[in-house]
Amino acid sequence: MRPGFSFTITARDGPARAALLATPHGAVATPAFMPVATYGAVRGIEAESLRGIGASILLANTFHLHERPGEDTVAALGGLHGWSGWRGPWLTDSGGYQVTSLGDRCQVGEEGVAFSSPRDGTRRLLTPERAVAIQEALGPDVAMALDECRPLAWLGTDPSDAEARRRTEASLARTLRWAARCQAARTRPDQLLFGIVQGGVFPALRRAGAEGTAALGFDGYAHGGLGLGEEAARRAELVEVAQEALPPAAPRYLMGLGRPEDLLGAIALGVDLFDCVLPTRNGRHGVLFTSAGVVRIRNARFARDGAPVDPACDCPTCRQHSRAYLRHLLQENEILGARLASLHNLRFYFRLLEGARAAIAEGRFAPWRREVEAGLQGPG
Amino acid sequence: MRPGFSFTITARDGPARAALLATPHGAVATPAFMPVATYGAVRGIEAESLRGIGASILLANTFHLHERPGEDTVAALGGLHGWSGWRGPWLTDSGGYQVTSLGDRCQVGEEGVAFSSPRDGTRRLLTPERAVAIQEALGPDVAMALDECRPLAWLGTDPSDAEARRRTEASLARTLRWAARCQAARTRPDQLLFGIVQGGVFPALRRAGAEGTAALGFDGYAHGGLGLGEEAARRAELVEVAQEALPPAAPRYLMGLGRPEDLLGAIALGVDLFDCVLPTRNGRHGVLFTSAGVVRIRNARFARDGAPVDPACDCPTCRQHSRAYLRHLLQENEILGARLASLHNLRFYFRLLEGARAAIAEGRFAPWRREVEAGLQGPG
Repeated sequence: MRPGFSFTITARDGPARAALLATPHGAVATPAFMPVATYGAVRGIEAESLRGIGASILLANTFHLHERPGEDTVAALGGLHGWSGWRGPWLTDSGGYQVTSLGDRCQVGEEGVAFSSPRDGTRRLLTPERAVAIQEALGPDVAMALDECRPLAWLGTDPSDAEARRRTEASLARTLRWAARCQAARTRPDQLLFGIVQGGVFPALRRAGAEGTAALGFDGYAHGGLGLGEEAARRAELVEVAQEALPPAAPRYLMGLGRPEDLLGAIALGVDLFDCVLPTRNGRHGVLFTSAGVVRIRNARFARDGAPVDPACDCPTCRQHSRAYLRHLLQENEILGARLASLHNLRFYFRLLEGARAAIAEGRFAPWRREVEAGLQGPG
Repeated sequence: MRPGFSFTITARDGPARAALLATPHGAVATPAFMPVATYGAVRGIEAESLRGIGASILLANTFHLHERPGEDTVAALGGLHGWSGWRGPWLTDSGGYQVTSLGDRCQVGEEGVAFSSPRDGTRRLLTPERAVAIQEALGPDVAMALDECRPLAWLGTDPSDAEARRRTEASLARTLRWAARCQAARTRPDQLLFGIVQGGVFPALRRAGAEGTAALGFDGYAHGGLGLGEEAARRAELVEVAQEALPPAAPRYLMGLGRPEDLLGAIALGVDLFDCVLPTRNGRHGVLFTSAGVVRIRNARFARDGAPVDPACDCPTCRQHSRAYLRHLLQENEILGARLASLHNLRFYFRLLEGARAAIAEGRFAPWRREVEAGLQGPG
């Protein structure tokens, strides 16, 4: 790894592992969950409160920050660490997912992704080189290579469909060419770059993708293009075959997938990093995670419930507030409700991962996982 | 005063005074500013952070809480102190201002104000007795008497208009009858009740209102119906004549008025308590108070400004974030922007009042006020 960075595996339990990812801006105990700070801020929660509930690394969206305020502005103010209030480690995505999500407003070619800016309508081109340059300006500790992240609906979801396989093969080949261009474009010695494994719904292509990406020698690896419509059982197989082909000494990251059970399943396969908007978005919608199942706090039966959301939770929301009060705030669209619900849900995720790390260290990940999963099925 | 309460004047400087209002839920050093927690929460800021920036007492709106979640729900969860996260002193308004603001949907009569609930359309009647009962259920430390708070546009703003004087006299007389009914309706020994002085734009009626209200022996007194269109110079006179007629040993409160210069002018006349939505509402709109004038943070010239909003400010926002970052959050409608801007503005108000209390204690309120007002006129 680059100077100032290291990835040290501290415990193993089958394929699952606990590790420490050290960066110049602090260390991340893995498996770790990265809250999503789309525009450089987790909705309603400043850095101090994030640290207080156990956050160690944040994810920002390159495409959104490129649009506003622009990477030059962020760079002029000291990069993500100086510009935002979060001085700890940052990871940015490549912008590929968001730009491809523009649908008709983007065209994917060998050079890159051409798109019309939602901000000002100008035509722009996101190339592998440009994705690296933008991320080098933003200055996260971990940058992501630009991949061709076609939707599964376009690639095809049926592994017996020859046409889908042809499309997915071609897309994977391009992702690997782009990955090599990203590697060649790097100029910052103080930033990690992770490659992204594609391969659609085809286990053989996922394996080939992992081997091809690993051959390029990235600092870490991610599983991309998942959680977009494939069945959970198939997804586990797709992650597993790729995991087996990736260098075990490098950190491995499952992008964008984030139900608690998704995390537990991937940790069992040796995945180290996760991100998802689920805890914050669900929180804003009043869907709260607890060790005894999901609580839909807007339900009328909580109108006079004086208990905390989760009596077993140590988050600021559960220590200070009742279900009734949180429900009231969300019903009235008080932004404090979004903040308190997000704080709770994020703390739930951090505690889940603290539990996973401890269970791995003690060699009891599988029974711990079964117990936690049984709780997650509860009535809340 | 009631058992558990006291109001002790600790320093005087001309009519201005510093005092300590003790309540069963904590003490309030006055002159004090009360942030507005309309629905039982200051927008985006939980109790812990409010305490951290120096808040000592909050104001909640009786009418809004009566509508949702209802005073019975709040009472069942321990009243405002138990239901919300704020365990310190609370003051509630009477609901009269909001209900009268419903315009066509309300009819004012001798019995009270009949209105159609914005929540469910049902017809209801807010009487003096009902206003006291609702506030006794909500359980603030300080409740307010129901007054007839007619808009100045209805009463009349021209002191030479005989018809306006007749209307204002009749309205004041009713306010005094309602004040007596509120006093008679009280059942809680552990709650203060403040009377409200009306009298429109007529100094003689303001004086008569103050004398009539004082004759009913309230725990404290408020100036109502101001800040609604009258000139600032006239308003000062209206407050002053009433102040002279109110018992000096009781706390005095100027309702709803809150530009910094309004507070300073009223403190000079011996007013002790203030509330206003201005710091939080302006904050959400990117209008930030500083010791060197107002900063309109959405202005493009702050896009790359790495300085804090106010280098002289000790609030969490100024300690952690740049103008550029705060501007970005507000531009993107990130709710964290509303929170950080409100924290800053509220801290500005609390520092302003800390300064006033210190200046009064040191007998230099007038020169201190001139210096602060000169700063407020600055370019930000």
